[in-house]
Amino acid sequence: MKTVIALFAALLISPQLAAEQATVAPAPNGITIPEGYENWRLIAISQRTESQTLRAILGNSIAIEAARQGKTNPWPNGTILAKLNWKQKASDKFATAVIPGEFIHADFMIKDSQKYVATGGWGYARWLGQQQQPYGKDASFAAECQGCHSAVQDQDFVFTTAVKLP
Amino acid sequence: MKTVIALFAALLISPQLAAEQATVAPAPNGITIPEGYENWRLIAISQRTESQTLRAILGNSIAIEAARQGKTNPWPNGTILAKLNWKQKASDKFATAVIPGEFIHADFMIKDSQKYVATGGWGYARWLGQQQQPYGKDASFAAECQGCHSAVQDQDFVFTTAVKLP
Repeated sequence: MKTVIALFAALLISPQLAAEQATVAPAPNGITIPEGYENWRLIAISQRTESQTLRAILGNSIAIEAARQGKTNPWPNGTILAKLNWKQKASDKFATAVIPGEFIHADFMIKDSQKYVATGGWGYARWLGQQQQPYGKDASFAAECQGCHSAVQDQDFVFTTAVKLP
Repeated sequence: MKTVIALFAALLISPQLAAEQATVAPAPNGITIPEGYENWRLIAISQRTESQTLRAILGNSIAIEAARQGKTNPWPNGTILAKLNWKQKASDKFATAVIPGEFIHADFMIKDSQKYVATGGWGYARWLGQQQQPYGKDASFAAECQGCHSAVQDQDFVFTTAVKLP
């Protein structure tokens, strides 16, 4: 029954999502783009000064539940984190506001400590731009992700700290 | 039936939300804090350079639907926008990353062109900090909100432009 309700809920929220995977090419390591990530809830936001980008980090339900319970080291299997990246630009409506400009890529970390044991228990994938082109020439691209994320191995390879809302 | 399903969906997502309104004092203009806003989906993010703050703008289902259809001038009645504001701070994990620090306030705009005709069709409210203290000494605080937002009367008093995701 719970599954049926969840399915109904998913359909209510976004009926067109089922078609998504069929139209976006998988990453070179075989990971397919998670369905419906644009409807996931907020984990955090950030800015990168060197690249002048703004980012929103969203999480699937498993991620949100873990974040709200403070159980993120390690994150549970089934967690998916989505980082949405935009070039930043100055607002033309408010002098001191910086807002999202061009959408540049969507990045994903999928936790499965067995399946992705070779990359620290996380499957990495990125799709570029509005066209959602998979990033990476071959499956070795994930080593690049893993290399950088190894700096935060002590927090399960995740840079982001979930925001704590009232 | 749709209402029943939506109710089930809301319960699945966050069973503890019903208690929220009972524990947060209303704004001086009588607006009560919208239930479950922490589960709403992403409209946009922003940074304010003068106050060194990061913001996430979330929307209720009516807002999200309007944003995705590009029907936001005017936003439909029933729209609620939530802006979550944090002091920014430097990440201690990534040299060029700026991330949310202290949570400072949650701001709301509630569209009802009849009820809030005196303030441009929008009801304004703000709650401060993790304690969710209502902002404003009396109901006149909304004139302060309205005064600033009048700069964007040509886009229905909303500064934010919804991001367009792939």
